[in-house]
Amino acid sequence: MKQFVVIGLGRFGSSVAKTLYKLGYDVLGIDSSEEIVQSMADSITHAVQADATDENTMKALGIRNFDVGIVSIGNDIQSSILVTLILKELGLKYVVAKANNELHGKVLYKIGADRVVFPERDMGIRVAHNLVSSNILDYIELSPDFSIVEIEALPEWYNKTLRNLDMRVKYGLNVMAIKRNDDIIVAPGADDIILEKDILVVVGKNKDIEKIEKSI
Amino acid sequence: MKQFVVIGLGRFGSSVAKTLYKLGYDVLGIDSSEEIVQSMADSITHAVQADATDENTMKALGIRNFDVGIVSIGNDIQSSILVTLILKELGLKYVVAKANNELHGKVLYKIGADRVVFPERDMGIRVAHNLVSSNILDYIELSPDFSIVEIEALPEWYNKTLRNLDMRVKYGLNVMAIKRNDDIIVAPGADDIILEKDILVVVGKNKDIEKIEKSI
Ligand SMILES: Nc1ncnc2c1ncn2[C@@H]1O[C@H](COP(=O)(O)OP(=O)(O)OP(=O)(O)O)[C@@H](O)[C@H]1O
Ligand SMILES: Nc1ncnc2c1ncn2[C@@H]1O[C@H](COP(=O)(O)OP(=O)(O)OP(=O)(O)O)[C@@H](O)[C@H]1O
Ligand SMILES: [Ca+2]
Ligand SMILES: [Ca+2]
Ligand SMILES: [Ca+2]
Ligand SMILES: [Ca+2]
Repeated sequence: MKQFVVIGLGRFGSSVAKTLYKLGYDVLGIDSSEEIVQSMADSITHAVQADATDENTMKALGIRNFDVGIVSIGNDIQSSILVTLILKELGLKYVVAKANNELHGKVLYKIGADRVVFPERDMGIRVAHNLVSSNILDYIELSPDFSIVEIEALPEWYNKTLRNLDMRVKYGLNVMAIKRNDDIIVAPGADDIILEKDILVVVGKNKDIEKIEKSI
Repeated sequence: MKQFVVIGLGRFGSSVAKTLYKLGYDVLGIDSSEEIVQSMADSITHAVQADATDENTMKALGIRNFDVGIVSIGNDIQSSILVTLILKELGLKYVVAKANNELHGKVLYKIGADRVVFPERDMGIRVAHNLVSSNILDYIELSPDFSIVEIEALPEWYNKTLRNLDMRVKYGLNVMAIKRNDDIIVAPGADDIILEKDILVVVGKNKDIEKIEKSI
């Protein structure tokens, strides 16, 4: 079973650490703030107060024995870079680092990060798409051209079958699932009927999705 | 066309503001930092340096004429709450606020926020799920029970048709799309063949997805 070390237990880091622990993995969390370490003590395997830019401390903590490191130091870009470098030098196979902006991300890749994430930027893009149309409830980019969206059924769709609506031809959208109350109809068939308040999970080209975003 | 005001142009707020502007909307951005306002000037309709907790300034800026407000002040919880309150009192129909934690979120709802978002927490959950299995490339929760995941084809799937693999029966997963190089095969048929390096977009129960996460 993989062992994880999460460095920086802010909003992002603490969420990663808690989720991994809930999934059944061993998680060591490190933060320079004693208060934050205290608050995480019961939510992960171990929480330790330390300055992760101090290589000797990191060695003493046995960091080289971990499989995956997650560097989620945000505001202090210099520390984020230094800690990523230390983790790679200690021999961690896979290091994920959180970046503040494109340039920070490029530097992290250059010094050996295996993956760079931009949580605030990515979630900002999703929320913006959700906002432009109140019918678009969630938005996930599959590729630069394709996305998955959750869309509230339009009144003109109520009580019609999917065959009848023919969304693939009319809107270029494929219905992958229908959310109805707490149920989900996965891979609905041509005879399934759309009801009021249904939420459709569809996949389609961004162009076609933008068209429907603007029409409703 | 809806008009948007984004207050707090940090990583999250600036991403929301830029995306809305790219989608063709009018976006006013407000931040107390002159440096941040300067850097956003060309990426949105207007960027203004102001303290958004000052109600008179907000009135003078004509904030009441906007349809949607996005409050993305993070560390200063008191300001985030105060600004949300001011926007609702000025009569904005829809106010989205970013919260640091559950308690902050509850307070924001109580004082009138129409939607509260937790960008770092939500992205932390996604990244954690991606990490536990290197074959799971992306993870999106549809409901407490169902998710969509992007999964790299396992070697034993190569050169087999979907009919042959029978993933619905074997793993409880429905294949919604196949990503192949820069192409996407949407709603693949039973005769479609999985190739090496294909990425499958599947929907299924969290329990079934966790099983496959742990087996690979
Ligand atoms: N050298 C370091 N060693 C250990 N922890 C550190 C170090 N530097 C910063 N941290 C911790 O990293 C955490 C995240 O840092 P910060 O709050 O600056 O980032 P952020 O991007 O705003 O976080 P988030 O948005 O995820 O809440 C903080 O709890 C901070 O104490
Ligand atoms: N009263 C205020 N009026 C206007 N802007 C403000 C006010 N208070 C804070 N801000 C701005 O809000 C922005 C976001 O705040 P902060 O950096 O504390 O949040 P954050 O959650 O760490 O941001 P992110 O993670 O999105 O980068 C900052 O650019 C800050 O200057
Ligand atoms: Ca503990
Ligand atoms: Ca401008
Ligand atoms: Ca911060
Ligand atoms: Ca943040």
